[in-house]
Amino acid sequence: MDAEEFRRRGMEMVDYVANYLENIEQRPVYPDVEPGYLRSLIPTEAPLEPDNYDDIIKDVDRVIMPGVTHWHSPYFFAYFPAATSYPALLADMLCGAIGCIGFSWAASPACTELETVMLDWLGKMLNLPEHFIAGTHGHGGGVIQSTASEATLVTLLAARCKAVRRVQASNPEKSEAEILSKLVAYTSEQAHCSVERASLIGGAMIKKVPTDNNYAVGGDMFKKMLEEDKAAGLIPFYFCATLGTTASCAFDRITELGPICNKENIWMHIDAAYAGSAFICPEFRPLLNGIEFADSFNFNPHKWLLINFDCSTMWVKKREDLIGAFKMEPLYLKHENQESGKKRFRSLKMWFVFRMYGIQGLHCRWFKRFDNNPGYCKSKQHELYVFLPSCQGSNRLNELLLKRITKSREIHLVPCQLSGRFVLRFAICARTTDSRHIQQAWRHITQLTFEILQEPNH
Amino acid sequence: MDAEEFRRRGMEMVDYVANYLENIEQRPVYPDVEPGYLRSLIPTEAPLEPDNYDDIIKDVDRVIMPGVTHWHSPYFFAYFPAATSYPALLADMLCGAIGCIGFSWAASPACTELETVMLDWLGKMLNLPEHFIAGTHGHGGGVIQSTASEATLVTLLAARCKAVRRVQASNPEKSEAEILSKLVAYTSEQAHCSVERASLIGGAMIKKVPTDNNYAVGGDMFKKMLEEDKAAGLIPFYFCATLGTTASCAFDRITELGPICNKENIWMHIDAAYAGSAFICPEFRPLLNGIEFADSFNFNPHKWLLINFDCSTMWVKKREDLIGAFKMEPLYLKHENQESGKKRFRSLKMWFVFRMYGIQGLHCRWFKRFDNNPGYCKSKQHELYVFLPSCQGSNRLNELLLKRITKSREIHLVPCQLSGRFVLRFAICARTTDSRHIQQAWRHITQLTFEILQEPNH
Repeated sequence: MDAEEFRRRGMEMVDYVANYLENIEQRPVYPDVEPGYLRSLIPTEAPLEPDNYDDIIKDVDRVIMPGVTHWHSPYFFAYFPAATSYPALLADMLCGAIGCIGFSWAASPACTELETVMLDWLGKMLNLPEHFIAGTHGHGGGVIQSTASEATLVTLLAARCKAVRRVQASNPEKSEAEILSKLVAYTSEQAHCSVERASLIGGAMIKKVPTDNNYAVGGDMFKKMLEEDKAAGLIPFYFCATLGTTASCAFDRITELGPICNKENIWMHIDAAYAGSAFICPEFRPLLNGIEFADSFNFNPHKWLLINFDCSTMWVKKREDLIGAFKMEPLYLKHENQESGKKRFRSLKMWFVFRMYGIQGLHCRWFKRFDNNPGYCKSKQHELYVFLPSCQGSNRLNELLLKRITKSREIHLVPCQLSGRFVLRFAICARTTDSRHIQQAWRHITQLTFEILQEPNH
Repeated sequence: MDAEEFRRRGMEMVDYVANYLENIEQRPVYPDVEPGYLRSLIPTEAPLEPDNYDDIIKDVDRVIMPGVTHWHSPYFFAYFPAATSYPALLADMLCGAIGCIGFSWAASPACTELETVMLDWLGKMLNLPEHFIAGTHGHGGGVIQSTASEATLVTLLAARCKAVRRVQASNPEKSEAEILSKLVAYTSEQAHCSVERASLIGGAMIKKVPTDNNYAVGGDMFKKMLEEDKAAGLIPFYFCATLGTTASCAFDRITELGPICNKENIWMHIDAAYAGSAFICPEFRPLLNGIEFADSFNFNPHKWLLINFDCSTMWVKKREDLIGAFKMEPLYLKHENQESGKKRFRSLKMWFVFRMYGIQGLHCRWFKRFDNNPGYCKSKQHELYVFLPSCQGSNRLNELLLKRITKSREIHLVPCQLSGRFVLRFAICARTTDSRHIQQAWRHITQLTFEILQEPNH
């Protein structure tokens, strides 16, 4: 395929994409296929001779689309939002064309520099403390990661490195293995499973702090665990707080936790993967109070902020803590101003989106729709983002209801576990979801519930 | 921006991309900017009101392009190739539109299934042993990772988990921390720095095996280290062999190393990030002999195989070894047929490329250009991929030469270190590089060398 054919096929693809997104509402949100469906639809080996491009596009409709869970359908209420917008798609096309691998400044200066400046822009939108802004002379700053899980892992490892160095500074006789076996990380029992995985990877112990009635961690409970662990000779080194837990969008009380962490030399990382985008709105910014105590902070613009996956933004107070933990310098990478990490030119998406919407356009976009919703049971804390429509029902009813919902394929939901209860979880996801879709989903859920309750064994 | 405007802007962007790639040869391959150049060219904060799209595109030319290292210029000979092709760019547009996050089968069945089948296609092209092919009943199979570094880390962690379980099975009294402190991983002293980083992250010791005159690791030297370490009470658990080292494209002798690893219960991972794409050609496939001993194998189609970043393909003999090491199942992710890992729909790129080129089209594309090149000093092993034009010169000459090359910005190179020598490294990277560009680069290098040698202090 030469440039000329790419021009023609590219224009067709742009049209295909526009049609797909414009008419996505008409597709069943959840596919009607069984595991293994695809293998029988295509050859077992790659073709020897080139195929015809038109056949490939026909196969997109025949093979791919029937097996797609449509995350951008307004009837998708599962997991979490996967952000998208037309400006972000355009920026991604440009990113693909430039196709640089930005692992150092020299490998593509524009890639490294735009990322730093875009993280400053976004940090200022969130009104982050000054020490998180790189500017021209700052010690902190932001960087794009692929996922919040990656940010958790990276910060846990940096904290581990820092803790080992600190202990060895005053106890030079202690081996790294000995110190490692005493390190303990903490997180909420409601935290995402990636925090536990990060500690497993890093070979550090992790303890889960119990939550209150709002599924949030406060200072008292953490302090109690901390004292016990210190008395037992353990070395607390990392706390991952969550703002907006995955299950119920609970907020750990970082204004209580932060001072404890600072006092005890514990790295406080804040994972606001899900809820973080809201903090650009003045009315939600108070939820981020306490950020001034954090060593690192992360959230996912690729969830709510119109920038498609992957774009998980992370800020650290001291860049040197990260670089110190990971830097190795073989000559083939060493070049003036090296940092590290292989990356695509993802900051282009941020630049296009921030400029095409403007801060005010981003502000009003996400939160108006929550007004005037049908009055089902909301998540208690902050009444934001996640609705738990069936939290009054029995586990058996909820499980059956979910099966019916999934089978009907009109809307798509997933469950969560809260205090031993099987709870349906209803998250507003697509950019185009409005009250009409939410009301239709609600009618659908109540009707299916009604049908189940009519059945003899209920 | 609505669908209609996206249609118009998308078509403009397709044209921009085609023009960029068609005329990339006219741009200086390496940018003439100083660190910090970009910050002064754009505002310090995001705009409140939306910007005009035309202004954004003008700024791509004003702000971005002057700071881009053009990886797809035929005069780019630095680092390693970053693959690209028009079919891959088209597939990426579709991937962006679908915008699913494929962390489980249910989250997007087509995404999970196409990936498995594409890895089978590619595995068959490489003539991988049957146990790496998933098929419908296999225990092994392939998965896409972002980078080879990620593949190394994942396999090292899986090996660590397996080793700890094995030791504990026969010594239940031993703690995980105790075992961990005895584990030792191995790799070549010429291996990529990501292997050392993986062991740092995993908290395991790593030892670097010395190489022979061809910068390759053989069985004897490894066996010797192994015996000493076992005698000292250490537990060898992981060997990362390299096929095609970054500095000089050396090949560790896996037919010797494999049987040792198998006998000693050491996980053998093969990192063929750079050279792996060549193995689809029958004439290079013998370089992969010994793969039958490996537990896992990885290479980067995003380097040579026309599929743009990121697409690093990894195969394992036993999928359960990976899943066993990482699986955690919170209810919100648990759904029939879950595996794990957040991912974009990257297999679409493989599908488009394999079909648009056909196996034969991929075969002949990459290797013909190496014929009839000017006769400068080549890397000794296999005379493939990497040329070391100045390996006869003094360190001082080579360092000065590199400075002049970088300053001239006609071609772009990076150095490497081999046996204490500072060596210029010349890799053929862009899809469109042909003999003409290589000859011109060679004339440029010889002329600069000549100029330096004429100078009084030489």
